[in-house]
Amino acid sequence: MKSQTNIPDPSDDLIRRASLVKEASLFLAQSTNEQRQAAITAMADALLLKSNEIVAANEKDLNRSKEAGLSQSLLSRLKLNSDKLINSIDAVRQVASLPDPIGSLQLHRELSEGLRLERITVPLGVLGVIFESRPDAVMQIASLAIRSGNGAILKGGSEAKLTNEAIVSAIKEGLKESNISQETICLLTTRQESLSLLCLDHYVDLIIPRGSNELVRFIQDNTRIPVLGHADGICHLYIDSDVDLSQATDIAIDSKCQYPAACNAIETLLVHKDIASSFLKVAIPAFVKAGVVLVGDSYSQDLGVPNEAQENDWSTEYLDLKLSVKIVLSVDEAMSHIRRYGSRHTDGIVTNNKDIAKKFLQSVDSSGVYHNCSTRFADGFRYGFGAEVGISTQTMPPRGPVGLEGLVTYRYFLKGQGHIVSDFNSGKNFFTHIDV
Amino acid sequence: MKSQTNIPDPSDDLIRRASLVKEASLFLAQSTNEQRQAAITAMADALLLKSNEIVAANEKDLNRSKEAGLSQSLLSRLKLNSDKLINSIDAVRQVASLPDPIGSLQLHRELSEGLRLERITVPLGVLGVIFESRPDAVMQIASLAIRSGNGAILKGGSEAKLTNEAIVSAIKEGLKESNISQETICLLTTRQESLSLLCLDHYVDLIIPRGSNELVRFIQDNTRIPVLGHADGICHLYIDSDVDLSQATDIAIDSKCQYPAACNAIETLLVHKDIASSFLKVAIPAFVKAGVVLVGDSYSQDLGVPNEAQENDWSTEYLDLKLSVKIVLSVDEAMSHIRRYGSRHTDGIVTNNKDIAKKFLQSVDSSGVYHNCSTRFADGFRYGFGAEVGISTQTMPPRGPVGLEGLVTYRYFLKGQGHIVSDFNSGKNFFTHIDV
Repeated sequence: MKSQTNIPDPSDDLIRRASLVKEASLFLAQSTNEQRQAAITAMADALLLKSNEIVAANEKDLNRSKEAGLSQSLLSRLKLNSDKLINSIDAVRQVASLPDPIGSLQLHRELSEGLRLERITVPLGVLGVIFESRPDAVMQIASLAIRSGNGAILKGGSEAKLTNEAIVSAIKEGLKESNISQETICLLTTRQESLSLLCLDHYVDLIIPRGSNELVRFIQDNTRIPVLGHADGICHLYIDSDVDLSQATDIAIDSKCQYPAACNAIETLLVHKDIASSFLKVAIPAFVKAGVVLVGDSYSQDLGVPNEAQENDWSTEYLDLKLSVKIVLSVDEAMSHIRRYGSRHTDGIVTNNKDIAKKFLQSVDSSGVYHNCSTRFADGFRYGFGAEVGISTQTMPPRGPVGLEGLVTYRYFLKGQGHIVSDFNSGKNFFTHIDV
Repeated sequence: MKSQTNIPDPSDDLIRRASLVKEASLFLAQSTNEQRQAAITAMADALLLKSNEIVAANEKDLNRSKEAGLSQSLLSRLKLNSDKLINSIDAVRQVASLPDPIGSLQLHRELSEGLRLERITVPLGVLGVIFESRPDAVMQIASLAIRSGNGAILKGGSEAKLTNEAIVSAIKEGLKESNISQETICLLTTRQESLSLLCLDHYVDLIIPRGSNELVRFIQDNTRIPVLGHADGICHLYIDSDVDLSQATDIAIDSKCQYPAACNAIETLLVHKDIASSFLKVAIPAFVKAGVVLVGDSYSQDLGVPNEAQENDWSTEYLDLKLSVKIVLSVDEAMSHIRRYGSRHTDGIVTNNKDIAKKFLQSVDSSGVYHNCSTRFADGFRYGFGAEVGISTQTMPPRGPVGLEGLVTYRYFLKGQGHIVSDFNSGKNFFTHIDV
């Protein structure tokens, strides 16, 4: 069932480094909001001060990667010029202004006279973050980790090695000026280490993979540490029979084309048979104009979709300007298609019929179910969370776009005056369960 | 890293039965609170009506198991006489009166004019529950599943086969009288099927193991489905130097002896050196009187602990009247022992020193951290949750004792009027992010 792989045992050096982060995270967990905010500002200041060195390191990484034949799209993700860096540093500063996710009292209850239960949000502990290319992710994750009181072990791609080292060195310079230990952040540089990271369940509390579906699935199958993220994002848009054609087309185009490489872009368009002919008459030229390759079932081909969809098209996340089209007889057929092929990520309906919209919203059990808007809104910033740690397609919370709340947990504190359970069993004492 | 085991591929019949539960769960998710409450009451009525048959089936299971040489403790867990059954049926009825965990609006935000985001609690889908002996768990889990809108695939121990079949048959009789499909609950009876259940990640959303640490660990290592529960519960009680001796002894005795087989009973007592002599003078006779076997480090042996603790004593969950004792120089040494050997389950401190209590509560990152009370309070009913699904030692929420909230997740609903992301990027529209 699980993929069989060779996960190397962690080296003594890796365990030593992970323990240092774990220990630093225990102190970080006790820091004040102001200390964590000041540390993030100090990190931003140090990154600015070292920006020339960071850009220079990035140029070396770029040259080396060009010689090694890295693809153009990976090169553009790797590139961190001065403008991009300044933007990233601004984003770090903004993390300081997000509301403090820790120390919030979620439950306060008197269990019995003199026996008080409190449930308070606390940091998870240590985050293990594995990402490909994008050195800006180092700054983002490091600042979100410290904001939420967590240590972080970061593993970037080897192509960004010099850039990442320059960034982490600046971050540590910044932390030196603060009350937060430099050991809170640790950078791993070898592939061996990133594999072993998956075994460190005594030191790492959450793995956050930032990369391809294959990377995420590999990690999910090879660690008992919880993984925040998602592998597939096969999203659907269903065009019901009762729609405004131009609105439906705009939503379909935006859901596919606004940023096709995003996980919340649609892969499949489901169209009600009664509107299919008139809708596709408008939509096909619009998609073609936007450069989208259309594949479809035989009905949609009869209505002008140029290519035939294969069975595996319905379960493929294109992440590209390609879209599969299927004509359905009813909202029920649309929902059953989504149930069969979807990823429980984000699925939408376009309809003016309130009953059909209600049925769709109640029955499709994806983390986001949308009515009359683009699936591209599935995003932590657009939801107003101020930050996005990732989008989770798992069913258990946190689910969907996850802000800082995905980086905290809670702890129950119980404070008594000598209370023992046997007094409650014998009837000598009793529970009151009064919320304070 | 993962234990290598032979998990059989699910049979066509198992997949067919799991799909039926999945499908039924989709309808259940759309039922009203009243329909789910009525279904639970109908289940309780049917169980009462069939109680003679259930008790008779249990007697057959008991006789068969006695002949097969089942241990006395397992036999007593298997036994379901009329009194126990009536209590269990009462507990089922009580589940109907718990507050509805689904349909609760957690977030309601206008993202932009006419674009509304709602986050609402919804059922997880289908629960997979694997338990050993205890046929009363079938009634408890079935009622909690339906209360929270989830289907359930149940797998009990083979020793309770006839009892479980009689119970599930009565439950289905009850459901027949309600608006909830009988297919919502399904009982598996072979070991082969329970193993294959671990592969059904397309049908099962949460696995709840009820059984030994070995069972839980085996399941955690062999499924990508989230598992609610815990393997080890190595809990500590630290007796600080500034304590009331009689209160400290009462708490220690209760934490160990009130129900030693529970996961929240302590395994290790850490005692500050300055109080060790006077505390142990009182505590050792009390433990001996309660039948507790004490093992300890050399310091505590000097003070009267009769047996030597081995290294593995500090990491063994006894679940029995056995306790390891260690003398520590400071609260820091106590906390570092807990960090090294604990399970992040429940750990307590007894002290009259507020600063030391505060330090302990802030620094010990267990799901429950207690001051001046017994660790045995770590329990969903005692916390006032009305039900307990399990106790989770994982770091991610749900953590600690988990009530019905562990059986629900949430979904984001986004309702627009043709909103597309490109309008927000072009500046034609803008986010307001106003909580409604």
